[in-house]
Amino acid sequence: MEKSESTKIDVVETNKEKKGKAPLLGTAAPAIAAAVAHDGHAKGGAKRGIAIFDLILRLAAFASALGATVAMATTEETLPFFTQFFQFEASYDDLPTFTFFVVGMGIVVAYLVLSVPFSIVCIVRPHAVVPRLLLIIFDTVIIALATGAAGSSAAIVYLAHNGNQDANWLAICQQFGDFCQRASGAVVASFVTVVLLILMVVLSASALRRH
Amino acid sequence: MEKSESTKIDVVETNKEKKGKAPLLGTAAPAIAAAVAHDGHAKGGAKRGIAIFDLILRLAAFASALGATVAMATTEETLPFFTQFFQFEASYDDLPTFTFFVVGMGIVVAYLVLSVPFSIVCIVRPHAVVPRLLLIIFDTVIIALATGAAGSSAAIVYLAHNGNQDANWLAICQQFGDFCQRASGAVVASFVTVVLLILMVVLSASALRRH
Repeated sequence: MEKSESTKIDVVETNKEKKGKAPLLGTAAPAIAAAVAHDGHAKGGAKRGIAIFDLILRLAAFASALGATVAMATTEETLPFFTQFFQFEASYDDLPTFTFFVVGMGIVVAYLVLSVPFSIVCIVRPHAVVPRLLLIIFDTVIIALATGAAGSSAAIVYLAHNGNQDANWLAICQQFGDFCQRASGAVVASFVTVVLLILMVVLSASALRRH
Repeated sequence: MEKSESTKIDVVETNKEKKGKAPLLGTAAPAIAAAVAHDGHAKGGAKRGIAIFDLILRLAAFASALGATVAMATTEETLPFFTQFFQFEASYDDLPTFTFFVVGMGIVVAYLVLSVPFSIVCIVRPHAVVPRLLLIIFDTVIIALATGAAGSSAAIVYLAHNGNQDANWLAICQQFGDFCQRASGAVVASFVTVVLLILMVVLSASALRRH
């Protein structure tokens, strides 16, 4: 029941992403081609193309960040049999790092939603400098937040999979296989978000270049 | 013996930083003041001031990244008494995450050294766009690397301090107090590096703005 519900959310969210992409890609492709072809002149067109591409990346990053947050937040598993552990249920809030992941990626999702208007302003006014500069600065801060959440959870997921003999920490994924799968998926999605955010900063910086 | 050696390294490195800072600060202070005072005109001076400040931040980031790497790489502790563990020695390479930390922060240190010439080019030629753009792009990537290393090690250090009852992972800092102290210090230094890197990107982006 729990599982089918989260699958539904994922599907809906992927549809949304496609809806957002479909009409935009049509305008973005020629704009980007123009950006590559004309370097010196037609600067407004090139900047607009970059801004449109930035918006597409932003929506994709929003989708992957939302997916990561939802996947991690709905991760729980109840075991149907006895083990050597006292509790028979694993949930994300058993591990403080995963709680930080959910909170951190939630902030990233909220930021990405709030930043869409700025991205649209950059499309409408390709020569505006202030919104682009704000995007670069806050994107950089959000990169640090997202990478911190992704990296710390990756360390814990690795530990859950492999354990550590020297510290006497046992792997828990033998018992909680489903839990580990979901958490690993969320971590991968958060790293995808980080890569998209880095691309966005690189694009915005190169758009800022030409005046 | 091991401890006194590493202390020596820290001291030498702090001196180096001071040496790098002392002559620069003298030129930087008026340049930054000029940057604040004249907004519209004297753009070259403002940009040069930002470039000098960028170099100072870069040297500080280099110092903290080097400190973090050396502190973590030399972290080991041998216990003088028996415990319930089989091994009586803790070293950074017992935990894969700490190995990643040392490698990752080592790359950050190497990058910061290699980026100094580009920062100097920005001081000499304040209107040059390409080196500044390259700095923004690679700084952003390095932010992700440094934050990933810092975040993942922070998660493990937290676990070592507090343990996790739900996963049956015991805190190891009662046994290896010195080891945990050093590792925590290294993590804090790496977060300082991240903050300095973010400041550098913000500065470079704002310098790119005015043409």
